[in-house]
Amino acid sequence: MSNAGDGTIGVGMVGHAFMGRVHSHAWRTVHRFYDVPLAPRLAVLGGRDLDRTKAAAAKMGWDAVETDWRELIARDDVQIVDICTPGDSHKDIAIAALAAGKHVLCEKPLANSVAEAEEMAAAATAAAANGQRSMVAFNYRRVPALALARQMIVEGRLGRVRHVRAQYLQDWLSDPTTPMAWRLRKEEAGSGALGDIGAHIIDATQFLLGEQLTGVSALTETFVHKRPVAGDPDGRLDDVTVDDAALFIGRFASGALASYEATRFALGRKNAMRVEINGERGSLAFDFESMNELSFYDGEIDDQSAGFRRILVTEPTHPYVGAWWPPGHLIGYEHTFTHEVFDFLTHVHDGTDPAPSFADGLQVQKVLGAVETSAGNDAKWTPVS
Amino acid sequence: MSNAGDGTIGVGMVGHAFMGRVHSHAWRTVHRFYDVPLAPRLAVLGGRDLDRTKAAAAKMGWDAVETDWRELIARDDVQIVDICTPGDSHKDIAIAALAAGKHVLCEKPLANSVAEAEEMAAAATAAAANGQRSMVAFNYRRVPALALARQMIVEGRLGRVRHVRAQYLQDWLSDPTTPMAWRLRKEEAGSGALGDIGAHIIDATQFLLGEQLTGVSALTETFVHKRPVAGDPDGRLDDVTVDDAALFIGRFASGALASYEATRFALGRKNAMRVEINGERGSLAFDFESMNELSFYDGEIDDQSAGFRRILVTEPTHPYVGAWWPPGHLIGYEHTFTHEVFDFLTHVHDGTDPAPSFADGLQVQKVLGAVETSAGNDAKWTPVS
Amino acid sequence: MSNAGDGTIGVGMVGHAFMGRVHSHAWRTVHRFYDVPLAPRLAVLGGRDLDRTKAAAAKMGWDAVETDWRELIARDDVQIVDICTPGDSHKDIAIAALAAGKHVLCEKPLANSVAEAEEMAAAATAAAANGQRSMVAFNYRRVPALALARQMIVEGRLGRVRHVRAQYLQDWLSDPTTPMAWRLRKEEAGSGALGDIGAHIIDATQFLLGEQLTGVSALTETFVHKRPVAGDPDGRLDDVTVDDAALFIGRFASGALASYEATRFALGRKNAMRVEINGERGSLAFDFESMNELSFYDGEIDDQSAGFRRILVTEPTHPYVGAWWPPGHLIGYEHTFTHEVFDFLTHVHDGTDPAPSFADGLQVQKVLGAVETSAGNDAKWTPVS
Amino acid sequence: MSNAGDGTIGVGMVGHAFMGRVHSHAWRTVHRFYDVPLAPRLAVLGGRDLDRTKAAAAKMGWDAVETDWRELIARDDVQIVDICTPGDSHKDIAIAALAAGKHVLCEKPLANSVAEAEEMAAAATAAAANGQRSMVAFNYRRVPALALARQMIVEGRLGRVRHVRAQYLQDWLSDPTTPMAWRLRKEEAGSGALGDIGAHIIDATQFLLGEQLTGVSALTETFVHKRPVAGDPDGRLDDVTVDDAALFIGRFASGALASYEATRFALGRKNAMRVEINGERGSLAFDFESMNELSFYDGEIDDQSAGFRRILVTEPTHPYVGAWWPPGHLIGYEHTFTHEVFDFLTHVHDGTDPAPSFADGLQVQKVLGAVETSAGNDAKWTPVS
Repeated sequence: MSNAGDGTIGVGMVGHAFMGRVHSHAWRTVHRFYDVPLAPRLAVLGGRDLDRTKAAAAKMGWDAVETDWRELIARDDVQIVDICTPGDSHKDIAIAALAAGKHVLCEKPLANSVAEAEEMAAAATAAAANGQRSMVAFNYRRVPALALARQMIVEGRLGRVRHVRAQYLQDWLSDPTTPMAWRLRKEEAGSGALGDIGAHIIDATQFLLGEQLTGVSALTETFVHKRPVAGDPDGRLDDVTVDDAALFIGRFASGALASYEATRFALGRKNAMRVEINGERGSLAFDFESMNELSFYDGEIDDQSAGFRRILVTEPTHPYVGAWWPPGHLIGYEHTFTHEVFDFLTHVHDGTDPAPSFADGLQVQKVLGAVETSAGNDAKWTPVS
Repeated sequence: MSNAGDGTIGVGMVGHAFMGRVHSHAWRTVHRFYDVPLAPRLAVLGGRDLDRTKAAAAKMGWDAVETDWRELIARDDVQIVDICTPGDSHKDIAIAALAAGKHVLCEKPLANSVAEAEEMAAAATAAAANGQRSMVAFNYRRVPALALARQMIVEGRLGRVRHVRAQYLQDWLSDPTTPMAWRLRKEEAGSGALGDIGAHIIDATQFLLGEQLTGVSALTETFVHKRPVAGDPDGRLDDVTVDDAALFIGRFASGALASYEATRFALGRKNAMRVEINGERGSLAFDFESMNELSFYDGEIDDQSAGFRRILVTEPTHPYVGAWWPPGHLIGYEHTFTHEVFDFLTHVHDGTDPAPSFADGLQVQKVLGAVETSAGNDAKWTPVS
Repeated sequence: MSNAGDGTIGVGMVGHAFMGRVHSHAWRTVHRFYDVPLAPRLAVLGGRDLDRTKAAAAKMGWDAVETDWRELIARDDVQIVDICTPGDSHKDIAIAALAAGKHVLCEKPLANSVAEAEEMAAAATAAAANGQRSMVAFNYRRVPALALARQMIVEGRLGRVRHVRAQYLQDWLSDPTTPMAWRLRKEEAGSGALGDIGAHIIDATQFLLGEQLTGVSALTETFVHKRPVAGDPDGRLDDVTVDDAALFIGRFASGALASYEATRFALGRKNAMRVEINGERGSLAFDFESMNELSFYDGEIDDQSAGFRRILVTEPTHPYVGAWWPPGHLIGYEHTFTHEVFDFLTHVHDGTDPAPSFADGLQVQKVLGAVETSAGNDAKWTPVS
Repeated sequence: MSNAGDGTIGVGMVGHAFMGRVHSHAWRTVHRFYDVPLAPRLAVLGGRDLDRTKAAAAKMGWDAVETDWRELIARDDVQIVDICTPGDSHKDIAIAALAAGKHVLCEKPLANSVAEAEEMAAAATAAAANGQRSMVAFNYRRVPALALARQMIVEGRLGRVRHVRAQYLQDWLSDPTTPMAWRLRKEEAGSGALGDIGAHIIDATQFLLGEQLTGVSALTETFVHKRPVAGDPDGRLDDVTVDDAALFIGRFASGALASYEATRFALGRKNAMRVEINGERGSLAFDFESMNELSFYDGEIDDQSAGFRRILVTEPTHPYVGAWWPPGHLIGYEHTFTHEVFDFLTHVHDGTDPAPSFADGLQVQKVLGAVETSAGNDAKWTPVS
């Protein structure tokens, strides 16, 4: 399993909607800013509709198209398979790609169920022995502010953590006339706010603390049960079969208390992925709506001048930032994906395992599963198996 | 049951620590800024130690002292009994005062248990028939920003509420060498962060929504189990017998989802009593550390210019504010108590019932009880009886 | 010149409008929170209209009234004369009070012209030899956050200062239908935004840096030249004869560059008295609309975690704060006056000179004069004499 | 003068340092997100050193290199010349490119003197008659928040503007050991903070108001006169011959008062390009360190709920934003350049004149000139000719 030998590596990406757009940008851009050992070639774009896929490939810079993802996987010019489809197809594509000897980058959540995720993690473990790399695309780990937060926690600047509070608040479904979408159908999306955005804060907080949730007590709610079919002239409605909001409390292995909330009904919050952590020595706060900032309270500073400080995470010494612009010149959402593929390419080249692994993705899936189980049982305390 | 007939009314206050200091200020100050029908006379201060009570009375402006609260209640120059003691004495003092025909203002939480609170509420109801007024001192309702928030919700500017998130974060116990205090002993304080500060956010959110929590699922934790006895030369330790932190999720009667957290271990948060509410038409956010501000998102505004706006709640048209300073000239913590006694005096004069009543205090106690029950049963869902 | 010998000292205050209200509160309250060597007695309130003065005295807690300030000064029960009138009467009252052997606290700006201020400063100097104390009421120096800022600068935490930017932004005149008031007449107020609020930022920045402005280049503007006479049934208009806004740039003695702006037309800014200072080692920022906060950038901290930190200036170790509430429990506008009279009473008792002195007030007046001269001469550079 | 006929257009860019990096990204990326009528080909990169230019071309994706900008201009595959060099070469390159029939995009400030800018503007005017397009790269106009601000002003939401305050604060020279650079030499850079960052706030505010500054009174300062030569083993120092900071006050044609400050010594401020505007009906505030936000105060809203609102400028209806990500997903610094080349390409295709034109650049140069004249004459009021 290797690259083309010319310092490039071929990528085949399945899916060309929102995630496809941002992944394409990352593949096009990473080697323009980072010193990557393998420059990605945008070899093949996969999509079900030929015309739409061709148009997307032209727009986004892909060399070829395939309408069957099995064909895409089979191609010799593809060494990396990048999965940007809804969750219901993740398992089949990933396992087939691994079986075909390819490296795999898979969008989150890893799967639509724990059972699927277990198969995928097992396949990834087996393939790793063969030198293939797998990674789940929890891009928020690569927000420089959160990567810095992780560094600070590793350095002990927070001490033992006592409290975690995490929220992922959006409002795009707050209006009941917003039309139906695949993200609102259980069979395609697996779950609603929980898996789509709740998964991000579960992964991010476990990443930050370097430990896992051991149990949860949860509530979920669907506020709007029927939504108009997009563009339907007869005004038909379709059933929303996923949660609109999920909230839960839990404990980390070390005993830290945690609370989580994921919703698409927090009117006015557009992408407020927020994390706040209180430790014995320091505290951190983050809000993606101000993604270039990390708020830090250093408990070691004298009372008279202590306070939460707004670290503008744009210094060349900050994680991932050196490749970009001078201090105070912000970066945006898509940069987190560029960071992600930079790390992935480096691991592929170096023959090391990137994180988050499929096993990490499986563990997040188990938390999602525990949340659903608890919510379905009157908020009963449910261990993360 | 009436006042002195000269436009004044006598107050007897029991307790002269933190709450006694701030209540004294309110009684001294209210008629200097508000047109109250009855100007308070600071008639008697009650405290167990004669010398310390005399010193406090001189400092805070009380005319006389009593070391037995029964004597204080019995005095003819006392028409209002103001209870500023730890929770374990609330019931006895309040019931005796009501029995003696006095109006009663009682610090929160109303009692140390649901059973005590029930007795008190029953006594208050009986006394109300006799023209006596009772009120629990949940002062945060009288923060102008929260009073404004309530107005806006009543006016329908939020529409149906879907989400409530409330936190009361302090950090004064984060350091394990902070000495023991009565607030950390169950027999005196009833509970820890839960009853002391959790009670405030429970009352405030129920007040804001105008409805009640129906059930909860909760976790509590004591992080530091032993603390040094203050000033003890031998360095002895005493047992902390209350929660250091409590968090729970719940539902309101209307179906709104809610999450709560009360802790004294959120390093860097000094008095962050925070409430965020998302409705169908608007959202609100508040943090007591910026207590003169209310953040409001008006969902009726066009997308292009919509955003959370920082209302500086210092306009003469804002609740309670007209009595104070010009716009932009802030008020502080103690003003909320001045507002409280202003309302209380007005109700006493007018013969109407102030809110929050002892019945309201009992209801909060039931939520506190449900939280403790749930936390003691593995976060089991517990209805608020 | 001494007090009543019983640990109290008599105050006679002239004027009972906005400043009278807030000074009254300070005199009533200071000894309830601070250990003052001399508790103030609210002896006499002076006002031109007998009925209105009597009503104000009753409301604000003054024992007696006088309609002629000369009578007030002459009374034996008055040891401190507190001047809360418009600027056009400051000189006569202050000089007469000093001549009568009284201590004098005078509202800002000290006078309506440099010439008046010079007479006053000379009188204060002469009286000081007689043990009398004089002070100008630049209350913003006693905002804890600004007092802390001064401490930090004295401690060298900013190093040599390079930049000062100060703004005092209000908006109460932005609406041209807001009626005429004495503050808009040159003969009474001396100047407009310049003397009323510009004086505060001049004093505050000179206090913070511990040095003076040496020259300025200025613009002033009157946006609305005529305003309705308040309550006039015929809708008559009156002439605004002062500046609506003043802005200037200048240099401090040490070479620091400075810019200033005072306006009552900054729509949406209610009382935004803002100061930002950049030094070689650190920077500070303050906005009175968040008066309990000081923003500090410590240049000595490593690049990776440096950032402006929000110091919540509510710790017991912060200037003036120990007398008030626990951390995170805010104070308000009127507290700055309580701090002011606390300091004044302490100096009166100790026989030491309080700051800002009348000489300091004169120096501010000279800056105001230079600004007016420059603005009247096409922004010509004008040294502060 | 036309494009290649295949829907693409060739770009030749001179300079490959900071500005070259960000322009390259824009040329590579614009057609991937926007529907441009002409997709840019990165034809030729110009640089003085062959090896370094080749390396830069490979890294940034340019097809060919030239070490003499005259050769670059002469090439048939170049239709657009993009000037990313220091200011001292702008005039020669631009005039030659225009003479050769090319479209020209030129970095700001347009030139190092008014005289140079006048020649360039004249050449651009002449070339426009020939169908050639010229534009100055004041990229901050294309920050969506500032483009939205302009829209709102045009729509009348601020009414007549009374106040403008603009600051561009950086701190990269605050440390006197930061080495010498071309930006600190007058012959190359023209001026210091004034032309580099002051030019941006001059252009941005004139753009926002749609009118020009008529006169200024200014101060400039050089705090550090000598700096180490980068990498010099003998520790030699070189002379800084430009301003470190410039501040000035001025008036707009309509009478609005304005103040400006540009400095590289505002410790802790990394790229704080800040603009605040107060009008009769509304106010706006912006800080590039939070570049995705615009703060707006709507004076038409009732007093009770009015306040500055934080518009997250990430809605599809906001200028330039529809091409990017969903609401709440931020964009960064480089996007402003992508917006710039999108507009430029559209104008080139449509045969219309883009803004800011060279004439606009000349006008900014005149303001810069007036500032320098005033600062050199004791802050004397200096009309913008």
